Amino acid sequence: MSVPLPRRRLLGAAAATAAAAALTTATPAAAATRSADVIIVGGGLAGLTAARAVVAAGRSALVLEARDRVGGRVLNLPLPDGGWTEGGGEFIGPTQDRIRALAAELGVATFPTYNAGKNLLYKDGKRTPYATDGLLGAVPPVDLAGLANAATVQATLDNLAKQVPVNAPWTAAKAQEWDRTTFDSWLCLNAPVPSARFLFDVATTSIFSAEPRELSLLYVLFYIASAGNESTPGTFERLTDTGSGAQATRFTGGSGLIPQRLAAALGERVVLNAPVDRISYGGGTATVTAAGLTATGRRVIVALPPALAARVDYDPLLPAARDQLTQRMPMGAVAKAIAVYPTPFWRSSGLNGQVVSDTGAVRSTFDNSPPDGSCGALMGFLEADEVRRLDGAAESEVRAAVLADYVRYFGAQAAQPTAFLLQRWDNERFSRGGPVGYAPPGVLTQYGPALRTPVGPLHWAGTETSDYWNGYMDGAVRSGERAAREVLAAL
Amino acid sequence: MSVPLPRRRLLGAAAATAAAAALTTATPAAAATRSADVIIVGGGLAGLTAARAVVAAGRSALVLEARDRVGGRVLNLPLPDGGWTEGGGEFIGPTQDRIRALAAELGVATFPTYNAGKNLLYKDGKRTPYATDGLLGAVPPVDLAGLANAATVQATLDNLAKQVPVNAPWTAAKAQEWDRTTFDSWLCLNAPVPSARFLFDVATTSIFSAEPRELSLLYVLFYIASAGNESTPGTFERLTDTGSGAQATRFTGGSGLIPQRLAAALGERVVLNAPVDRISYGGGTATVTAAGLTATGRRVIVALPPALAARVDYDPLLPAARDQLTQRMPMGAVAKAIAVYPTPFWRSSGLNGQVVSDTGAVRSTFDNSPPDGSCGALMGFLEADEVRRLDGAAESEVRAAVLADYVRYFGAQAAQPTAFLLQRWDNERFSRGGPVGYAPPGVLTQYGPALRTPVGPLHWAGTETSDYWNGYMDGAVRSGERAAREVLAAL
Repeated sequence: MSVPLPRRRLLGAAAATAAAAALTTATPAAAATRSADVIIVGGGLAGLTAARAVVAAGRSALVLEARDRVGGRVLNLPLPDGGWTEGGGEFIGPTQDRIRALAAELGVATFPTYNAGKNLLYKDGKRTPYATDGLLGAVPPVDLAGLANAATVQATLDNLAKQVPVNAPWTAAKAQEWDRTTFDSWLCLNAPVPSARFLFDVATTSIFSAEPRELSLLYVLFYIASAGNESTPGTFERLTDTGSGAQATRFTGGSGLIPQRLAAALGERVVLNAPVDRISYGGGTATVTAAGLTATGRRVIVALPPALAARVDYDPLLPAARDQLTQRMPMGAVAKAIAVYPTPFWRSSGLNGQVVSDTGAVRSTFDNSPPDGSCGALMGFLEADEVRRLDGAAESEVRAAVLADYVRYFGAQAAQPTAFLLQRWDNERFSRGGPVGYAPPGVLTQYGPALRTPVGPLHWAGTETSDYWNGYMDGAVRSGERAAREVLAAL
Repeated sequence: MSVPLPRRRLLGAAAATAAAAALTTATPAAAATRSADVIIVGGGLAGLTAARAVVAAGRSALVLEARDRVGGRVLNLPLPDGGWTEGGGEFIGPTQDRIRALAAELGVATFPTYNAGKNLLYKDGKRTPYATDGLLGAVPPVDLAGLANAATVQATLDNLAKQVPVNAPWTAAKAQEWDRTTFDSWLCLNAPVPSARFLFDVATTSIFSAEPRELSLLYVLFYIASAGNESTPGTFERLTDTGSGAQATRFTGGSGLIPQRLAAALGERVVLNAPVDRISYGGGTATVTAAGLTATGRRVIVALPPALAARVDYDPLLPAARDQLTQRMPMGAVAKAIAVYPTPFWRSSGLNGQVVSDTGAVRSTFDNSPPDGSCGALMGFLEADEVRRLDGAAESEVRAAVLADYVRYFGAQAAQPTAFLLQRWDNERFSRGGPVGYAPPGVLTQYGPALRTPVGPLHWAGTETSDYWNGYMDGAVRSGERAAREVLAAL
């Protein structure tokens, strides 16, 4: 179990000012009462962005956050000897315009994800470094039959995704056909070459933290379509790629600076340790209760993933379509493991720290070292079936499994990190999985409109509600901006 | 929206004694405190059966029920001019030994579901009565190619189901293969003849209140295997059949008598209007809070469907496997509509009131008249896609849609019922769907063991946890008895 970290330890020196301001956020006093034009449930990127937009338009906002920190699935973790790493969302890439613009406004700089040198394919017990600037691009060098099959599958996915409207995937001409099958069944037919199938299996768990069998084909196609912006169609490659995809860029000081600075600017409009248990609404007002605090407003933005929004009491009851949606979009299963070393030693072997593997607890890694390379950090994802096996394990057991993988990928030097950080999202009370609530078959076509349709004065935000970059930090920001537009138009 | 009915109106004269006793059940006083060896969350059939078994073994039990009535998904509804009908589970059949034994112990008699005369197939706008005692048995007379295809599919399903251990379907040799696909995808391959596919579509929604696309093939096979008992393997036909299947028999006075009598015998051990919001556990005790009541015990049985159990706060947190299970077993979507007429007029036309249809809000009906035939009652299920279309509609609109269907099936006389009762489970706060929490692909293989594995002093009941007759009243009773055995062994 991860232990909530005191806020002041989360930040490098660069963020000291913002942190000091953020610390002024209140916690609810017993029987306190607050009011604002807009009450926002959830102080993640979506909720904070919404609050910022509401305030910028001259309306009042109040953010109720369950945890003792803001940021939700975005979280800086301190390194023992100073500096930081990231326990949640960390990467951005091309067409992720809204998170990029927001970071710039907040003065959070970016740097390229370390990507010099060769990737590593670990397959059938064999370790194969490969360049990503060759003919194959970033595709791991499996056998030729597999490469050919994978290229066809990828092109097919991109073509099908072009037929999915990102703002209403359930209106695609073939939505019914695509929503009645798992991505796994589709891959069984379309990726018969084992090595091609391997590539899509590992890509799927990396993207969704869910197995192909858990996902609706329509949802996968929507997610691909969503990996773009208003002028650039989404592609599968943009989801998976580092150099020119969703993993291209990182934030100096850590992605956690963004929610911290948003919260700092909102000041006492953000209340921590305020897990909302009930929302009553009607007659032009809404009342939100959380740990003794009663907040009243004219509009409410619920900026929680669907599975957590299900755990709030609503009075009157939500329409069945909305409630049943929240029963049907479970969180993926994911943990992040960051091992810190005196140096990024793999770089001197010509490796960029990125692995694709067919075995182990960690099958996908990144070089998560700080931008100055002053130490080395290997970050690995534990995802879907692999993390489920370890969700109940002691941290020492997870550590041993992860380091065994790192040694297999990068050699004996990986066995002795100077620090080891583990962020287990499945075990977090206010996440219970991650990174995103996904849709099994039959959900988008029957319940999709309930993702965003307001219920009286209640509006829905969170990355799961976004048209573009659904599931990513950019989608969270977009959703917050969209929800703010909705409430501002209604106020 | 259905309105909760005062308990005294629920019962016919036959049940007056039981009702009077049941009315002694308490409601929580402000800041009340209670204790018992076993605290049971949920006063449906599972919870009440568990309490009965605990008390019978000489231990104390306390049942906390959220509603102002017991019974959960089992509910008698009063008819305006006296008598009763049933808004929830009502049928039992062969091999449902535990509910049958319990009813007998409680003095609740049974009678055969009305099944004399012909069934009705409504397909492609054509109405075809058919006898069920001919060569085809209860199979609707579609074209010969469809009948042949359907027979093969049904035999295949039964054979595959024999390979599924009902107490651990995830251990079937082919569990992984069957859990990666929807039942829809399997039907696409195995029921290519449109009329055969129609038969399995309507059977699926009738059995699960979910569409084939929403269900894991493994879960469907498990459900078939579950439709039997320790000495009789489950079959598909036993799920669908009336005369010799799960719809064979009804309870005199209504199925609602069973929970009412269970509660009456438990007396003040049952607390109504006590929706549990929090369960704290550890150190050999557990504390359960509900609407101002604090109940302490040594063991807790949570007898709620998984999707509702997710809405309780647990301290300490549940293991990720259990929490994520509860995110992944949504309730089906279902309503029941009962139209009452002066007489069961369809009987004089040689019809038994049972329809299988390819169109309309109601595609499956039964003759729900009281055993003496003193009035006529047509009961229709609104299920899955059909009920979702109507969940937000006014009751008058649903009524109009249902009666239009009944007229199409049974003629103009059906247009003017003397009473019309609608039980909309999707809109009920303490159900939010029904009749049962089902498993999409990938759930049973990864999370199945969490259905029943106790967490410290917390045990899990509810029909979704049963080996045999999972999803039925019999499964609820079995689950309550099994959970009681677990806690008694631990006390």
